[in-house]
Amino acid sequence: MDFEKRLTEIADKVTVALDQLIPPAQGPEANLMRAMRHAALANGKRMRPFYVIETGAMFDADETSLLRTAAALECVHTYSLVHDDLPCMDDDDLRRGQPTVHKAFDEATAVLAGDALLTLAFKIVAGEDTHRDPAIRMRLTERLADAAGAKGMVGGQMIDMLEEESPRDLNTITRMQRLKTGALISYSVEAAGIIGGASEASRHALAGFAQDLGLAYQIADDLLDVTGNQETVGKTLRRDEAAGKANFVTLLGVEGAQERVRLLAAQAKQHLAIFRNKANILLQSVDYVLDRTR
Amino acid sequence: MDFEKRLTEIADKVTVALDQLIPPAQGPEANLMRAMRHAALANGKRMRPFYVIETGAMFDADETSLLRTAAALECVHTYSLVHDDLPCMDDDDLRRGQPTVHKAFDEATAVLAGDALLTLAFKIVAGEDTHRDPAIRMRLTERLADAAGAKGMVGGQMIDMLEEESPRDLNTITRMQRLKTGALISYSVEAAGIIGGASEASRHALAGFAQDLGLAYQIADDLLDVTGNQETVGKTLRRDEAAGKANFVTLLGVEGAQERVRLLAAQAKQHLAIFRNKANILLQSVDYVLDRTR
Repeated sequence: MDFEKRLTEIADKVTVALDQLIPPAQGPEANLMRAMRHAALANGKRMRPFYVIETGAMFDADETSLLRTAAALECVHTYSLVHDDLPCMDDDDLRRGQPTVHKAFDEATAVLAGDALLTLAFKIVAGEDTHRDPAIRMRLTERLADAAGAKGMVGGQMIDMLEEESPRDLNTITRMQRLKTGALISYSVEAAGIIGGASEASRHALAGFAQDLGLAYQIADDLLDVTGNQETVGKTLRRDEAAGKANFVTLLGVEGAQERVRLLAAQAKQHLAIFRNKANILLQSVDYVLDRTR
Repeated sequence: MDFEKRLTEIADKVTVALDQLIPPAQGPEANLMRAMRHAALANGKRMRPFYVIETGAMFDADETSLLRTAAALECVHTYSLVHDDLPCMDDDDLRRGQPTVHKAFDEATAVLAGDALLTLAFKIVAGEDTHRDPAIRMRLTERLADAAGAKGMVGGQMIDMLEEESPRDLNTITRMQRLKTGALISYSVEAAGIIGGASEASRHALAGFAQDLGLAYQIADDLLDVTGNQETVGKTLRRDEAAGKANFVTLLGVEGAQERVRLLAAQAKQHLAIFRNKANILLQSVDYVLDRTR
């Protein structure tokens, strides 16, 4: 099946799931739910859900388990965007082609909507409907907390904020990105392996795949920040340049960064070899990342 | 045993547990862990942990299960204080007798430290060491998410922020407080019942106790805001008055509020009758709330 069509299909499914999972806007706290929905139902690529669902399909994993886990992961990703966009963090006005939550509502609402989306993620993944075996749900919950927490995504965001004050080198940026974006991408394939009962060899291959993919994805993002069109991308571009922040492109140059993405993409594909043609759609997703850099 | 001595003992135990559970300050993200520790290891009364541990003791529940659940709950409570104190929320400089996180560090660090503490709470409660039965851990996790989320604590905080813009009546304030502070207090006794395998009658009695206690506690807090000494209390007082915000005392008057606390305290005690003398320490805790209002 065509990759982009499949990506759109999954994005639509996840949006429908989130629409059902986020409480409707009722009662005096309705403002909170409106803000959560503003952020979560906006038009995102839903790459992390894509990797949960397509990786899980390789193991014939239960679709409801995958979809709920994907929705929970997207809640975590969305909350991180809402908080990252706050004036005291990256101070951004535009996200997913619409005003950020603190612009459309206010700062307090953005803080609380992020908090509520993070909490909801754990409610979803721990919920009975996610898997009949509570031990599996526990594993999914614990690993999500690892990926999202101080030694994962939030830790990476902290390094990102601090590094604004000091010069960055390639090692620091690589570590920062492995935590900030890599941890959730790794979780997406790991969770699929947990749900699908993947063998140790498969889990190992998936972990390697996710690590290379995550970094390739981030370098591609930095390239897009330099070469992209703001209207198409749907968020403010050339922010690193404006802030005088180093990133993969300022450190490696455009051509050096493109070369690095190609290398990482090739490595990522090699990890998938053991899955043979079952991994076709994941292989296509790597080409999609490559295409973004051109 | 003497209530205040027991409260101190439990507070110390919980602080030691949190010290072990919060990652040490290492690596480039050390700033984040320092901020988490600044907030969580500060000198709090640890009332919620007290109710987890002393309620669980009535059912001879496993002490490690209770302590880990209490620590997780305290992480949630602490994160909510860190975010509530932010300039875009209540804008407070003093908490638990020390500068708030955004004062001691900065706003971005406070947002991230709160996020990381909330995430850590779920990591703790879902962790294998919390209970050998994953179904019990799942139940603890799901109910914690309910109590902390959009239809619990965060929802209450949203109402609190919005109500600043419109006049409040007793119904709105009661509903707001039931969510904002009541939900976590209810969770503390509910979680103990889950861990201790409480009967339905016991769980029902505990739910009623927590509901009355939570409201009494909040009204006592409003009284303290008017009559208390800032140095003893360790947080900024007379904030509602300064902001022209209605609370239980402005609506009921000091005497009316005291009378309401007495009524709620008597009701709370009645719910505990079925536990006979096993509930002695919980009964004493109600008197402690009463004493605060004098």
